[in-house]
Amino acid sequence: MEYTKPLAQLIEFFQKFPGIGPKSAQRMAFHLLKMPLSEVQRFSKILVEAKENIHYCNICFNMSASNPCEICSDDRRDKTVICVVAETKDLIAIEKTREYKGLYHVLQGTLSPLDGIGVEDIRIKELLTRVTDENIKEIILALSPSVEGEATSMYITKLLKPFKIKISRIAFGLPIGSDLEFADEITLAKAIEGRRIIED
Amino acid sequence: MEYTKPLAQLIEFFQKFPGIGPKSAQRMAFHLLKMPLSEVQRFSKILVEAKENIHYCNICFNMSASNPCEICSDDRRDKTVICVVAETKDLIAIEKTREYKGLYHVLQGTLSPLDGIGVEDIRIKELLTRVTDENIKEIILALSPSVEGEATSMYITKLLKPFKIKISRIAFGLPIGSDLEFADEITLAKAIEGRRIIED
Repeated sequence: MEYTKPLAQLIEFFQKFPGIGPKSAQRMAFHLLKMPLSEVQRFSKILVEAKENIHYCNICFNMSASNPCEICSDDRRDKTVICVVAETKDLIAIEKTREYKGLYHVLQGTLSPLDGIGVEDIRIKELLTRVTDENIKEIILALSPSVEGEATSMYITKLLKPFKIKISRIAFGLPIGSDLEFADEITLAKAIEGRRIIED
Repeated sequence: MEYTKPLAQLIEFFQKFPGIGPKSAQRMAFHLLKMPLSEVQRFSKILVEAKENIHYCNICFNMSASNPCEICSDDRRDKTVICVVAETKDLIAIEKTREYKGLYHVLQGTLSPLDGIGVEDIRIKELLTRVTDENIKEIILALSPSVEGEATSMYITKLLKPFKIKISRIAFGLPIGSDLEFADEITLAKAIEGRRIIED
């Protein structure tokens, strides 16, 4: 005997999510079946509502229920700085620090020729338009220190060179609270490369 | 800025599942938003359908879309043996071995006084009724070797003693393919306790 059909379908669907294997999918399905029907109905409604209401901001391509998004339409933000990130979740991570008060540009990916993701597939053209049309003074590149992130950062840097605006990258090095002894070589090399003169 | 409301709700809901932390919930939510609307609508429908259609079998308390369940209503199964398990997922695990051809009884939990789960909260009374009314020759206890599983097994053994039927427990010991060196002491102790004479 296998699982009864609606249960098998449910498990199969949960398995479509990243990081969810057969065991986790099974656990999630059983958990769902133990929820009250009203909860399940609410979940079912939230799923479709989220999908129907969340769109990309026409300016920065952040995911949002409003357009322009909450950040682009916030007058208190510094409209001369754009922080370039790969995905909305990176934007959220930066927002949580409460340190950054400028705008964003969500590329919706990074250049990855091996996966067939080229310049036309991410929002680079739209970034160029913003730099041309808006009064931008600095671009902060906040892409991951992976091969794809590096390639994308380099590409954007070259592309924006003629504009003579400040282009910076977030710092890479040892994470705060970590132990030098256990840092991998590449991180340590980046930390040495990115060293700063201590002013006195 | 926090997540836009429908997205925050979605993440919050995914976090209700066991083993899903904030990061996984976020990843699942973004994955869902990238699915086509038709897929999301199908998922939404499957959730409610599964909840509405899956019920407990009146005989063995297995989760099933039919009642009695597929196993209880299968004439080819041996109706003189009942394998007692804690949850439907344990039943499925045993079914996958294709070794067992008898019936099941799903307790829907194990005795756990600390969590307030007593004899009345699990399907022990119903097991007693089956042993009384049906022509049962053997009860196989297939509960986990945890404190709760042990306590429940002991309780059922005492309860069924007057019936003079065979009561057995699945074997505990070293898992196949494992290395004795790395086995924990309790497992090893169980493996020694459960040793079998090799017949020649």
